[in-house]
Amino acid sequence: MKKIRAAVVGYGNIGRYALEAIEAAPDFEVAGIIRRNPQAPLPEPFRSYPVTDNLEKLTAVDVAILATPTRSVEAYAKAALALGIRTVDSFDIHTQIADLRRTLDVEAKRHGVVSVVAAGWDPGSDSVVRTLLQAIVPEGITYTDFGPGMSMGHTVAVKAIEGVRAALSMTIPMGTGVHRRMVYVEIEDGYDFDTVADAIRRDDYFAHDETHVVRVDSVEALKDVGHGVHLTRKGVSGVTHNQRISFDMQINNPALTGQILVAAARAAMRLQPGAYTMIEIPPVDLLPGDRDAWIGRIV
Amino acid sequence: MKKIRAAVVGYGNIGRYALEAIEAAPDFEVAGIIRRNPQAPLPEPFRSYPVTDNLEKLTAVDVAILATPTRSVEAYAKAALALGIRTVDSFDIHTQIADLRRTLDVEAKRHGVVSVVAAGWDPGSDSVVRTLLQAIVPEGITYTDFGPGMSMGHTVAVKAIEGVRAALSMTIPMGTGVHRRMVYVEIEDGYDFDTVADAIRRDDYFAHDETHVVRVDSVEALKDVGHGVHLTRKGVSGVTHNQRISFDMQINNPALTGQILVAAARAAMRLQPGAYTMIEIPPVDLLPGDRDAWIGRIV
Repeated sequence: MKKIRAAVVGYGNIGRYALEAIEAAPDFEVAGIIRRNPQAPLPEPFRSYPVTDNLEKLTAVDVAILATPTRSVEAYAKAALALGIRTVDSFDIHTQIADLRRTLDVEAKRHGVVSVVAAGWDPGSDSVVRTLLQAIVPEGITYTDFGPGMSMGHTVAVKAIEGVRAALSMTIPMGTGVHRRMVYVEIEDGYDFDTVADAIRRDDYFAHDETHVVRVDSVEALKDVGHGVHLTRKGVSGVTHNQRISFDMQINNPALTGQILVAAARAAMRLQPGAYTMIEIPPVDLLPGDRDAWIGRIV
Repeated sequence: MKKIRAAVVGYGNIGRYALEAIEAAPDFEVAGIIRRNPQAPLPEPFRSYPVTDNLEKLTAVDVAILATPTRSVEAYAKAALALGIRTVDSFDIHTQIADLRRTLDVEAKRHGVVSVVAAGWDPGSDSVVRTLLQAIVPEGITYTDFGPGMSMGHTVAVKAIEGVRAALSMTIPMGTGVHRRMVYVEIEDGYDFDTVADAIRRDDYFAHDETHVVRVDSVEALKDVGHGVHLTRKGVSGVTHNQRISFDMQINNPALTGQILVAAARAAMRLQPGAYTMIEIPPVDLLPGDRDAWIGRIV
């Protein structure tokens, strides 16, 4: 069987795990890696792959897995779609997903290919669960409680504050969608911890949550990519109340994201031209091999 | 907005809850009820609806919700599809779903309509969760632990045993897909409890599980339609082990099934002609209203 040739655009944490997921998938092969600096060193297992700074230089790419920062996704996606290459991304700014999908839908249809947007775990697989729960329990409240785990966005916000040398912001779930922020910081010489801590707590990323700032000697020594979610819905099916459903994960965050990108890339080979979020994709299209076999095995 | 006109075929437990779910849905209306005996009494809230013994006698039916016994689904579905009416069912014999879908796929395409098969909670929404977990954690084991709750199939099997006047078989989850059967029976006069209990434990439905048979004065006094599931997967994303996910429900069983049938009926209005299991349906198609709005709200 001909394998799906996937290029990974960006070699950071997600890029590395996406490459591992491609290698582990029975129906995929690595077409190459796109980096701004193709000469930068790669770990041993990935050195045999073509590395370039442009998708055009790779051969026969079926799908580009965009493992770039979220804010670069749109530009990279448009460039790939213009080459007739399918894209998947894990764009994660919830409030901008609908717009990105609309924009990429036009581009994807223009070039007759597929783009899957926001294919991580939240947004992504959690969105599928939320949609399913909304459908089967139409009235009620869904709470998505994240953590414990590192928040990239909050960590970046802390790092931008003057006097912070290194930082780690952990998200701690307190239930009903309320989160505590545990912020671990190294302080630059000559700065006062209390002043820096105050600035962090006043930052818009933290001002609305319970935030604890802790001074540490080494942020690096605390880092762990484990993360989690506890998603609950209690509500009404028909006119019957007290329907209770929950979904829990304790996972390696970038490994899950890398795997979901590969599953979404598979779906991108099967869908009609256009852009899709994960709630618009038949779940079976995320699985390798024959649809009928899965129906017999998993339904 | 024109409402989706749904007929409910069969007025048992599921049929009643399906009617309630139709009434509660903003985009549906009841086209009528199909019963073998249209003169049989209906509770007050449903007395205003047309009741007939044949779908042909109802006006402008968009979709027929088949709330019949599982073994009657195929015949009723074929009859409805031949009239150009979409169908949804909660057919629940896991090993025969692929065949039923293939059979109804031919009929549905022949008449240019849609049939959604096995749209309950298991098979059904649980199948969607299993598919999603398989996609995001491709290696590992998924366990589906049912209960505590009444098993219809096992209860019917007990009732068929000589000397049993009334029965209730409860499924108790013991983890890793192993279930205990708690069987509550009323014994016919003149029969020996131990002999009947032995026959139950030797029945093929019970021979492979830990089974306890308890004699009671009134089975009716024990009945409760609450049920549940605990679905877990532990496995590998890419090459990263120890990814842990679980899905839990504690629900009113027929209310959830009735609601899922209505959500699937909505999807049946949107899909291309053919037959589908729930893992083949974009989850957003289960929701009322505009797709773009849900993408903005729930992804």
